[in-house]
Amino acid sequence: MLSEFDLISRYFTRAPRSNIDHIALGVGDDCALLMPAAGTQLAISTDMLVEGRHFFPDAEPFALGHKCLAVNLSDLAAMGARPLAFTLALALPEAREEWLKPFSTGLLALADLHQCELIGGDTTKGPLNICITVFGETLPGQALRRDAAQPGDDIWISGTLGDARLALAAYRNELVLDAASHAQAASRMHQPTPRVALGMALRGIAHAAIDISDGLVGDLGHILKRSGVGATLAVDSLPAGTVLSRQPQAIRRRFTLAGGDDYELCFTAASANRAAVQAAAQSATIGVTRIGTIDAKSGLRLHDANDAALDLQLTSFDHFRST
Amino acid sequence: MLSEFDLISRYFTRAPRSNIDHIALGVGDDCALLMPAAGTQLAISTDMLVEGRHFFPDAEPFALGHKCLAVNLSDLAAMGARPLAFTLALALPEAREEWLKPFSTGLLALADLHQCELIGGDTTKGPLNICITVFGETLPGQALRRDAAQPGDDIWISGTLGDARLALAAYRNELVLDAASHAQAASRMHQPTPRVALGMALRGIAHAAIDISDGLVGDLGHILKRSGVGATLAVDSLPAGTVLSRQPQAIRRRFTLAGGDDYELCFTAASANRAAVQAAAQSATIGVTRIGTIDAKSGLRLHDANDAALDLQLTSFDHFRST
Repeated sequence: MLSEFDLISRYFTRAPRSNIDHIALGVGDDCALLMPAAGTQLAISTDMLVEGRHFFPDAEPFALGHKCLAVNLSDLAAMGARPLAFTLALALPEAREEWLKPFSTGLLALADLHQCELIGGDTTKGPLNICITVFGETLPGQALRRDAAQPGDDIWISGTLGDARLALAAYRNELVLDAASHAQAASRMHQPTPRVALGMALRGIAHAAIDISDGLVGDLGHILKRSGVGATLAVDSLPAGTVLSRQPQAIRRRFTLAGGDDYELCFTAASANRAAVQAAAQSATIGVTRIGTIDAKSGLRLHDANDAALDLQLTSFDHFRST
Repeated sequence: MLSEFDLISRYFTRAPRSNIDHIALGVGDDCALLMPAAGTQLAISTDMLVEGRHFFPDAEPFALGHKCLAVNLSDLAAMGARPLAFTLALALPEAREEWLKPFSTGLLALADLHQCELIGGDTTKGPLNICITVFGETLPGQALRRDAAQPGDDIWISGTLGDARLALAAYRNELVLDAASHAQAASRMHQPTPRVALGMALRGIAHAAIDISDGLVGDLGHILKRSGVGATLAVDSLPAGTVLSRQPQAIRRRFTLAGGDDYELCFTAASANRAAVQAAAQSATIGVTRIGTIDAKSGLRLHDANDAALDLQLTSFDHFRST
């Protein structure tokens, strides 16, 4: 069996890339040394993924490697930060090459795509647990914070919502999908795309932003709470995922509003910035949809296509409450 | 039962302290924002602690909170970095106040002692797993790196070695200690003291440094390998812990050389700097002992009190190899 140190060096240590001048020291010492550019702020986020909670016990390791970093990059995107580097802490029941090789390949492929360097980590024996801490760069005053929404702001969402939750529903036999539809929806669940370029393009244009990990209602709720505002959502204008859009209205509404794991960006911007938002989205090659408005009055109001109030019972995904 | 978000706000969110000017944004957004002082490097380390591997299933939560941060601060100490902040990712089987309250109290008490702010985190349901990523500050060229040992350097160790391993041996019934001795040794195992002040005081004085988490032979081995040097250790001059020093020579040798969990600093410095090392240790109010020399010749040589070669079979602690 491979030793802890063999594992690290074989799969997670690579020659430093020559174009990375902010990393003074990478994997292999007591600490990594990061040298942020003068005057920049470091955006830092950490996510822990647990087997049976965030992914299935038989999760395909390449996709899992991708997803673990993707959810962290998504937090950087939600701040408008540029990815710099990350650390990986990994608990494994056993050190199997058949798992480590594809896992590290999926992880590092996404890291390379975003020029985000693995600079340190820890490995240990234990129930499968993957904890990544990611570092990004932003300028003072430019970060897209949750507390910055203003009454009158448009509310926007990137891409589409609900296909990840739809795939989960099919895995749980809550509904039936044909094989092709299930595979298509499942790819949104297993290999989410962090909207990094969009987040960066929205700096100076958007006010508040958050990424959709627990469901739109719950995540938008964090913006509302921290900004001290309310909102009205046009429920039937929410952009459903390709597969979800073929489902009945009740499921479309439920999974666009309260489906987790989409990793799209929900953000607010002054209505005067509509053209600028569209230009930012175009530069990031992702669609965006206007889905509602920020109100001075607290609370979240859901309206249907006829602008009539809807009374839907929805709860956000909560790891300690839901199953 | 408390929800995930209730947990975070109740136990881990505190009002930001007024004297922390490098933290632009703490807990509660997608990312924290850290603003390192101009020209400084950020030292980053991550450690994952798993129940049954790094601590007993019934570990006392106050001490456990202390230890989880202590092992990370020890990594900063080994680089000579000043603690700034940390993130905490926590997987818990259930959200119990009786556990969370003392755990967070122990954790935050040590954090306050080192002015190290909790700036972000993640909580989820899962087998108990505690992952901390810590951030410290150092200046370019001042970090105490593993690759900086020079032939002719003295090798030093702070404090004493082996009591943590002795306590573990008693828990495992490998040997018998009286209750008072066991309690005394166990305090070294459960509540290690990171040598932060010493690490900072050694900047510009020591060459290489590492903290002793897996045992002296294994950890010093990392310095030797990365520096491309060898070493000779005076085995019987290794400072044994208070309880270990009353044990037979064979056990003293074994646990000082290969006992883990001590979190002392092993460092090398030019022999011309002996007085400076002693002054640094005095300023940090911790004893240091000279235990050997760095050689140009590779390999580790163990000598007894008569300077005769010892041939001891020792292996470093390795989470995937040992039990």
